[in-house]
Amino acid sequence: MLSKGLLHPDISKNRGIFRELTELSTCFGTQPYHLKQLIGQPERFAEFSLKAKDFFFDFSRQRLDATVFKSLIQLAKETKACQRFSDMVTGILVNTTEKRAALHTGARAFSKDALKVGDIDVYSEMDRVNREIKDFSLAVHQGTLKGSTGKAFTQAVVIGIGGSYLGCEFVFEALKQSIYPKISLNFLPNVDIDNFNNVIKKIDPETCLWIVISKSYTTTETMANLAQAKLFLKTHGLFPEDHLVTVTAKGSPGDDPLNPVLAAFHMFDFIGGRFSVTSAVGGVPLSLAFGFDNFEKFLKGCHTMDTHALTAPESQNIPLVAALISIWNTFFLNYPAQAIIPYSSGLSKLPAHIQQLYMESIGKHVSRDGQFLIRPAGSIIFGEPGTNAQHSFFQLAHQGPAFPIEFIGVVKPAYTGACARSKGVTNHQELWANMIAQTLALAVGKDDGVPAKSFDGNRPSSLVLIKDLSPESLGKLLAFYEARTVFEGFILGLNPFDQFGVELGKILAGDIRNEIDLKNQSLKNGVDHDFEHLEDAKRFYLDTLFKGSLE
Amino acid sequence: MLSKGLLHPDISKNRGIFRELTELSTCFGTQPYHLKQLIGQPERFAEFSLKAKDFFFDFSRQRLDATVFKSLIQLAKETKACQRFSDMVTGILVNTTEKRAALHTGARAFSKDALKVGDIDVYSEMDRVNREIKDFSLAVHQGTLKGSTGKAFTQAVVIGIGGSYLGCEFVFEALKQSIYPKISLNFLPNVDIDNFNNVIKKIDPETCLWIVISKSYTTTETMANLAQAKLFLKTHGLFPEDHLVTVTAKGSPGDDPLNPVLAAFHMFDFIGGRFSVTSAVGGVPLSLAFGFDNFEKFLKGCHTMDTHALTAPESQNIPLVAALISIWNTFFLNYPAQAIIPYSSGLSKLPAHIQQLYMESIGKHVSRDGQFLIRPAGSIIFGEPGTNAQHSFFQLAHQGPAFPIEFIGVVKPAYTGACARSKGVTNHQELWANMIAQTLALAVGKDDGVPAKSFDGNRPSSLVLIKDLSPESLGKLLAFYEARTVFEGFILGLNPFDQFGVELGKILAGDIRNEIDLKNQSLKNGVDHDFEHLEDAKRFYLDTLFKGSLE
Repeated sequence: MLSKGLLHPDISKNRGIFRELTELSTCFGTQPYHLKQLIGQPERFAEFSLKAKDFFFDFSRQRLDATVFKSLIQLAKETKACQRFSDMVTGILVNTTEKRAALHTGARAFSKDALKVGDIDVYSEMDRVNREIKDFSLAVHQGTLKGSTGKAFTQAVVIGIGGSYLGCEFVFEALKQSIYPKISLNFLPNVDIDNFNNVIKKIDPETCLWIVISKSYTTTETMANLAQAKLFLKTHGLFPEDHLVTVTAKGSPGDDPLNPVLAAFHMFDFIGGRFSVTSAVGGVPLSLAFGFDNFEKFLKGCHTMDTHALTAPESQNIPLVAALISIWNTFFLNYPAQAIIPYSSGLSKLPAHIQQLYMESIGKHVSRDGQFLIRPAGSIIFGEPGTNAQHSFFQLAHQGPAFPIEFIGVVKPAYTGACARSKGVTNHQELWANMIAQTLALAVGKDDGVPAKSFDGNRPSSLVLIKDLSPESLGKLLAFYEARTVFEGFILGLNPFDQFGVELGKILAGDIRNEIDLKNQSLKNGVDHDFEHLEDAKRFYLDTLFKGSLE
Repeated sequence: MLSKGLLHPDISKNRGIFRELTELSTCFGTQPYHLKQLIGQPERFAEFSLKAKDFFFDFSRQRLDATVFKSLIQLAKETKACQRFSDMVTGILVNTTEKRAALHTGARAFSKDALKVGDIDVYSEMDRVNREIKDFSLAVHQGTLKGSTGKAFTQAVVIGIGGSYLGCEFVFEALKQSIYPKISLNFLPNVDIDNFNNVIKKIDPETCLWIVISKSYTTTETMANLAQAKLFLKTHGLFPEDHLVTVTAKGSPGDDPLNPVLAAFHMFDFIGGRFSVTSAVGGVPLSLAFGFDNFEKFLKGCHTMDTHALTAPESQNIPLVAALISIWNTFFLNYPAQAIIPYSSGLSKLPAHIQQLYMESIGKHVSRDGQFLIRPAGSIIFGEPGTNAQHSFFQLAHQGPAFPIEFIGVVKPAYTGACARSKGVTNHQELWANMIAQTLALAVGKDDGVPAKSFDGNRPSSLVLIKDLSPESLGKLLAFYEARTVFEGFILGLNPFDQFGVELGKILAGDIRNEIDLKNQSLKNGVDHDFEHLEDAKRFYLDTLFKGSLE
């Protein structure tokens, strides 16, 4: 039994299921396993596609057959993937290295049960925070809460980076296709002052809220941008306590009566940044933008997928099957990357969110019990919307080094107005014609006497369909990727909830920041602090920074 | 002599330079070649960095030494990279498969010389088109040219996809950091009707220009969106001929007096889409946005880099050295992907442009004389701005499967206003502290008794510095990537200017479009056309499309 996971060093390569999958993967280089043969088999499409809760997943153009699929399901069973998912949902400390629960599913469980993590009653706290968000957003929309000069709020700037930003931006961009925002959101993640510059060009200081999102309220970028925001508000004669809202841990410096703010909402240790879209991190900005009722519908969509992931048997479990395919492609067929191509411009920010969710969760070199994995886990995720991507990097996708693709289709677009036809079809029909054609072209290829016009094919892809860009459908899509990611982590045997790999960069940045700080002080005090003692590259870059020129 | 290029099938693996580089690459897996040793060597930084024309390129944290560098330069010489670049600039038909010249450098040469391609006098035609752009943009800015209802134009929608879009968007986003747009640009690349939906929410029909960019004026997406634009204009009581501008080939349907437009600007066969930012493709929208004088400054920046690429000897030639490093990393060290991380939010659209430029140019399986390469060329390019990326996928960059990174720093930000300090430093200083720290952390790593806290290091990166986000600096950056890309294609022995790999998808999309068209007609006529004859997957997707539901 592989309960330590696929990549744990104690799992010898001779163990049954690992060896079996490795042997199967070598077969798949040979002709009878070319996708053009596989997809021609009777019942292929029915056998290798799944539907649940208006969410459709077609993996019939993946390089696998019934034998591989059976072995992958066996892998999921041996690594107790479903048991671990259930452990996660019930509050067990599955974030082993940080000794925390991982209860993002609890943020949308709508449960009245008691679930304690430490001394926190999870569901009642989630419910409390959501009620506060509801009341607050209503007060803003009704104009009960106003800025320093008595004007109602019409805009917000979200200060937050990484997990405090990417998920919210994805959902905001998708929902605003069909729902007009009551409060328009602007995002200020980057410490680059030009990000701030860009944001302040778009806002009216008097009618703008600033939502500061940081669990610890110490994130360097977020605190630096908060300092700019405060200076900006004061410069415009406004009081920060009238315009600042925080989403932060209870008792952090952002939740301290000594630093008064308009409102503070709590986030918790048991929901990590990249899984936090359905907590107050997404809840506050998205409820301000679209109303709490729409945010609640989004949560219900997530819960629908969570329930499916928790209860469906392995072979019917869509996110689990997607995780197994990702493992098959990465570890057995050795593809180094996966593309996510939504055929929907409303989903244009989805790939960047999943890039973070997946690469930060799975890009690890240690097992959940702290030993080096037999090889580093994870693959690169990237993507752009279709059909744009066809006119960008699909040349390489068809004729360069192969990589698997996940296509996403939306059955109904948000737009409901008049539509001209070209070549006999609507734009949405043209979009789908291309989406379907790409999945086939990649799989089947084409023989041609002219090498430039021939296509190897045998390039794997999946196709996900969601019904529309409604809050419910987007919730299902988000929760699908969250569940897929944690399943993959559980099966590999790592902890998908920590991120120790970002620490070294922070430490070294601190050293360099100290050098800059010393120089800043020396310039102010007329005392000399130069960078002569630094190694060549560091000295050059810091000299260039202070000189402000490359000459 | 390898004049057929590195990957040509006639180049036996036993040939001198190939074998030499392959042997060197195996050495680089061993300890004395770890980057923490390499970067500690005296003069490392001076020896492995280049500066020219206020453009700085540091490759001292790439996994190479003087011997490798010498062999790579030898590779460039044997494949006649500089000669081919010179051939390109002088109008020789380097786009061998399509029998065309590749004269994007001619678009910014400001030359009075005669250069004939077929019966076209290149420089005088470029000059003519630029003068037309100058006059037209001035007339729009001065309000001489007006819309159907007599109002001056304040906005434009750019209809174009792939090479008719990505480069222009990158430059627009970067330039608007420091120059306020006279005409704001909106982009409509995607055939997804929600892209159209999103655009029309932002514009005032009466003051909006529509710029339609397509060489053949037959690009499916662009024509479909043009049809929507015309319907939209008519619905608002406006005349398409007052609001439409085209950038297209001479004599195309977009340059036909029978289809009158406000203005038509020519583009030419000798400049391919992904290399067309400095032609009328970028010239018309960017001159409308920022004035022709700024577009001209941008061209001059490109020309500066072109001249460097054309005249600098191999070992001093920045784009050539960058191309050699890309080849070293991809073909000898076997990295499957490269990230581009600009530490500048103004450069947020650069990675998507370079993704297209590089992946469509280099992602090939045939040599320039039409034979299968010894293996498919190209690697995946992806990226997000820093510091954002640090909070997204840098966990994997540090502890997952390794990939090389190209960092880009901007010495001076666009913002010049007041700036609060956090931890003693400005935001721009914090940004640079992080950029420098990341390059070092990736290279050096850290030993730690706790595996989760240990870092292998030895992850290669380069660092590019540009002076600012001025038109000149952005021109240099664009031309650097263009030259780097063509050098890489020349050295590998492929044609970086064609894209036959996108044809199969277009053909299959046409088949599916025909099915949809038949169904549309049958619905109108009450005659039955069903999809029963189609294979399972196609039938399911087309049925779902027409049903508009997943139930």
